[in-house]
Amino acid sequence: MELIVLGSAAGGGLPQWNCAGGQSAQVWSHSRPAQTQASVAVGNRDSGYIVINASPDLRQQILQTPQLQPTRDHPDGVRNSPIKGVIVTNADVDNVAGLLNLREKQKFDIYGPTKVLEILADNTIFSVLDPDYVTQRSLETGEAIQPIPGLEIELFTVAGKAPLYLEDSLGIETGDLGFTSGVEVRTEHSKTLVISSCAAIDQKLLERIETAEHLLFDGTVFEDNEMQLLGLGNKTGQRMGHLPITGSDGPMARLADCALKTKRFFHINNSNPIWDNQSEAYQTIQTAGWDICHDGMVLTL
Amino acid sequence: MELIVLGSAAGGGLPQWNCAGGQSAQVWSHSRPAQTQASVAVGNRDSGYIVINASPDLRQQILQTPQLQPTRDHPDGVRNSPIKGVIVTNADVDNVAGLLNLREKQKFDIYGPTKVLEILADNTIFSVLDPDYVTQRSLETGEAIQPIPGLEIELFTVAGKAPLYLEDSLGIETGDLGFTSGVEVRTEHSKTLVISSCAAIDQKLLERIETAEHLLFDGTVFEDNEMQLLGLGNKTGQRMGHLPITGSDGPMARLADCALKTKRFFHINNSNPIWDNQSEAYQTIQTAGWDICHDGMVLTL
Repeated sequence: MELIVLGSAAGGGLPQWNCAGGQSAQVWSHSRPAQTQASVAVGNRDSGYIVINASPDLRQQILQTPQLQPTRDHPDGVRNSPIKGVIVTNADVDNVAGLLNLREKQKFDIYGPTKVLEILADNTIFSVLDPDYVTQRSLETGEAIQPIPGLEIELFTVAGKAPLYLEDSLGIETGDLGFTSGVEVRTEHSKTLVISSCAAIDQKLLERIETAEHLLFDGTVFEDNEMQLLGLGNKTGQRMGHLPITGSDGPMARLADCALKTKRFFHINNSNPIWDNQSEAYQTIQTAGWDICHDGMVLTL
Repeated sequence: MELIVLGSAAGGGLPQWNCAGGQSAQVWSHSRPAQTQASVAVGNRDSGYIVINASPDLRQQILQTPQLQPTRDHPDGVRNSPIKGVIVTNADVDNVAGLLNLREKQKFDIYGPTKVLEILADNTIFSVLDPDYVTQRSLETGEAIQPIPGLEIELFTVAGKAPLYLEDSLGIETGDLGFTSGVEVRTEHSKTLVISSCAAIDQKLLERIETAEHLLFDGTVFEDNEMQLLGLGNKTGQRMGHLPITGSDGPMARLADCALKTKRFFHINNSNPIWDNQSEAYQTIQTAGWDICHDGMVLTL
């Protein structure tokens, strides 16, 4: 089994379409490669793959990931895909927009909390996913499934905030609202956690992390006010529901003693200096035993 | 003024995510470059650009089109964009999904028929486009606007069918249903028609085409049943609301005598052999005075 990082940039990607500053600058000038928005695929050639969150970049991610491409001489004919399912952990555009790329009469399953599937049902645009081919299955937190042989997946709630487009009705407070989930990926050999959004590391989460081999953790911002400092917006990391990497309650401090095999930041905003491997910030996370994820990175599970 | 072809592939793009056959095969094997889904931008550096239809590939299209990228030292600050507006001609996923890439508090206008704007409003996922920044303006067929200096745009109805996800409620008959529009782009020097979907060329359309300098025309399928022949699906071109290029009522036959400066096929399906410039089909359209559009192609208007 392998985990492929399809993309590890936060919403907007790197570079962001309307941003000439921050970390986007170096990408527009071709000094560093572009990175797509956060998503991973887990599986192998024999069992197929499960995509965790369907980013708006999913078509591009399939184009740059040979493991997810259709094959010639397939028993189903020329129309086929190794993608057997997609798990959507919440209803943010960042995590569901990519489903619109998976139209075209291909059989696969969508798994997600009932609340998320209801939002998809309310948005008629998603009915391009023909129910004759695409089955929606509810997957609540705490429930474990085996979507493909050799792989077990369980969602768990994480402190967060309501999706941006529901803020008007639900408010901006963070907490355990049921909208934000981490994903626990279990194989015969290892346990991996994918947590793209986290507003607080509580004791329960800490205990879960301590039993895992691999961690992909919310690396949205390095410092809470970095977007303000770069002129990229008024919101702090905390306001967006993300713990800053360097905060006293952040992952670098709180997870320093966790004996994981690998710790990598994931869901990294285009303001975050850790994108630059020549930066002090990158040196800081490396010294602390962390690295970053990037498009195409593979972890053997 | 220039028209940039951001993409000219029909829905799904080239290659299509779940298709190893047809024209996709050569792209998966890297013998030919990938092509994004149909969209054009019109404008210039001074006035900015108007995007006509927001394809699901819009983020990737901006990444590969320097004219649409933000600039340093912009009076608005590091967050800026040359994209001043987006025209959505219908509510197909192919034409509206890309709007989800244009979140992030950037001022621009969306123009489209009231019926299309209503579908966007009914789909709450589009409320990520904050109305404090993004203004929706109704643009009915027959109404001319000047979205940027030096550019006049008018939509006109074309025979077509209902969007795929409304077929259940509205049926599959083609005709002048008001869902399918062509776009007339006028500058001081020329008139250009962008018609990505057309189920019939009637006398009125023929007269409009005869007064234009440049034509981008529905090139979805070369032959009506090519998808069936390639094992790619059961639908004919006609069933999808597209005139086959070689049909007796198709563009090659009906527009043979139109004295346009340029005639190019646009919205080309991944089944269509004209993608291959070594094919007989490509020779046929070239002999008839046509060419194809491709990502990054520029027309001076």
